Amino acid sequence: MVFETIKWLDDKNVIQIIDQTYLPVEKKFKIISSTEQIWEAIKNLRVRGAPLIGVSAAYGAVLAVIEANNNFSLLNEDNFDFKILINDYFNFILDKIKYISTARPTAVNLFWALNRIKNRLLKLKKEISPSNSSCTSIKEFEIIKNIILKKILEEAKNIHSEDALMCEKIGIHGEKLISDGDSILTHCNAGSMATSAWGTALAPIYKAFEKGKKIKVYSDETRPLLQGSRITAYELLDKGIETYTITDNMAGFVMKLKKVNKVIVGADRICSNGDFANKIGTYSIAILAKFHNIPFYVAAPVTTFDFNLKTGKEIPIEERGKEEIIRGFGKQTAPDNVKIFNPAFDVTPFNLVTAFITDKGIIYPPFEENFNILK
Amino acid sequence: MVFETIKWLDDKNVIQIIDQTYLPVEKKFKIISSTEQIWEAIKNLRVRGAPLIGVSAAYGAVLAVIEANNNFSLLNEDNFDFKILINDYFNFILDKIKYISTARPTAVNLFWALNRIKNRLLKLKKEISPSNSSCTSIKEFEIIKNIILKKILEEAKNIHSEDALMCEKIGIHGEKLISDGDSILTHCNAGSMATSAWGTALAPIYKAFEKGKKIKVYSDETRPLLQGSRITAYELLDKGIETYTITDNMAGFVMKLKKVNKVIVGADRICSNGDFANKIGTYSIAILAKFHNIPFYVAAPVTTFDFNLKTGKEIPIEERGKEEIIRGFGKQTAPDNVKIFNPAFDVTPFNLVTAFITDKGIIYPPFEENFNILK
Repeated sequence: MVFETIKWLDDKNVIQIIDQTYLPVEKKFKIISSTEQIWEAIKNLRVRGAPLIGVSAAYGAVLAVIEANNNFSLLNEDNFDFKILINDYFNFILDKIKYISTARPTAVNLFWALNRIKNRLLKLKKEISPSNSSCTSIKEFEIIKNIILKKILEEAKNIHSEDALMCEKIGIHGEKLISDGDSILTHCNAGSMATSAWGTALAPIYKAFEKGKKIKVYSDETRPLLQGSRITAYELLDKGIETYTITDNMAGFVMKLKKVNKVIVGADRICSNGDFANKIGTYSIAILAKFHNIPFYVAAPVTTFDFNLKTGKEIPIEERGKEEIIRGFGKQTAPDNVKIFNPAFDVTPFNLVTAFITDKGIIYPPFEENFNILK
Repeated sequence: MVFETIKWLDDKNVIQIIDQTYLPVEKKFKIISSTEQIWEAIKNLRVRGAPLIGVSAAYGAVLAVIEANNNFSLLNEDNFDFKILINDYFNFILDKIKYISTARPTAVNLFWALNRIKNRLLKLKKEISPSNSSCTSIKEFEIIKNIILKKILEEAKNIHSEDALMCEKIGIHGEKLISDGDSILTHCNAGSMATSAWGTALAPIYKAFEKGKKIKVYSDETRPLLQGSRITAYELLDKGIETYTITDNMAGFVMKLKKVNKVIVGADRICSNGDFANKIGTYSIAILAKFHNIPFYVAAPVTTFDFNLKTGKEIPIEERGKEEIIRGFGKQTAPDNVKIFNPAFDVTPFNLVTAFITDKGIIYPPFEENFNILK
């Protein structure tokens, strides 16, 4: 039922991803064996979708540990202050983690996952610091390095399996909102391919489909990078769900013609008041849904909530390059000298949201108050 | 200032068009010398835009006359009833005209132009019918054929030059709505390339720019056929106007960020009550403009009004093929087995329109009543 969008290969100590830039033509795997490569894969959307970015970053941090372990290979014990060494070692890893965090700015899961790894790392550092450990030899340092790797890999795998579980719970809660015969509009890809499991926006659809409910899905193609037509359509069809691809500008007309009766989208970051960032175009769809009195749901795990931010104004919005707009398909589709505006996300205000579908249940307004169950 | 989107070449008796499918990469001319070719050019959007479709069809009707003239080349006068002959001759032309009218169903200018040619033709037929003419010989029939060609070409050229004049008048009236510093969103291409002259939606912009007003234009790329990014951006930049290409799903966010303060679009057919059909996506933009309190203008010549239709429900909406959605750029962007919905147009209700900009002036609500000046 679920794609192995990402996997840690224990025998090789590398990450295996589905390189999503090849979809829908090819389901191609790619091996990621350095922090530079995971940064590039996140930046260029080989892996994408807020939850999957989080899991990818966590495994990326494991690669940072491996790189530190290789870099800090001592040949003799002369002139080494193990206190300084341990410090340098951890700073090396933390620098790499910081670097991974610069791949993309909007999805909070990236920072959430790296922060969790970082906290685990600092805790480990405290536990094994020379003052209260016996690390005074190369042999002991090697043991410490192996422990760090083991523990951080464990943490990354936990993040991975927890993500899968959260997605499944989103599906279980959200399924109750879906009726037999529903026709659901979704935007971008918030499915299996955006997570390590069932997806977020698509999880309720998969669960409803499994229960035998008849469902149609309309999937916006989602320019500029076409995650809707390339990825959402691909995975829905793979499961056997009736799927329609439409261009983004058809959403309003599809609603007017009553071809859809619900909207479910994912999120990249949700603020305390319920304002949220998601793939560019989400805001327009929310307005169109409001205009047509169609329920508009946002599905996301607790890891996508950022209670440090009060409103959507505080969410940093990634702007991407010109090529995606003017040569997004290999072929030139706009003049070279045109100006462009290419925000990867937009912010939708809370008052356009019917409810949030989370792993801890469905949350209706008033959101600020009702979000307390997530804390 | 204006592109020669279409031109009758008198020395060769053929139509020369700019084949717009090559834009923005190349401004390529194409010679059209048969009714089959003009049908194909309209069908496949080598010429497009409601007014230009009308002019193209009119010249297409001239080709129909030429084909009739070639087809009805008599070698001897034996066994010919000239009454039957004249009848067959005109029916041949009318059949070809009917055929041209099947190229696309939504833009009313196609039917308007062909109808005008047809009426001219029936009037000519009456004038030269054997009962009240002296057509009893091949020589006379040849003279008649030449007269018909001359008159129909004259009519087509009138349609052409009247269209240019109407566009200029739209520009003159609409210019008054544009202030120095405005930033205007437009959709699809309703510019020079959509007409034989200044365009409709872009005419007021060109006129304002000529008067020295500083203007920015945001142009939706307009999937699936990208007339916005391919053609509108091309022609605005050609004139030196500051132009931004955005994907269709960015329109809402651009409005929220106050990057645009006006919307002007064209139309393919306008009903008695003010409901109108235009390129798919127009309806969504109208709703988004309403939500953000941004004026939404529709620019069109009187030839785009169809007072036979009471409301937008009566407008036939063209649905186009799958390839435009799943392989619109040569490259596969959606799975082959996905279903699609590909309406080329949508219908926007009158209550989302601030005003119509016509060659006879700006028309504000109540539209049904105020449209009387157009009749």
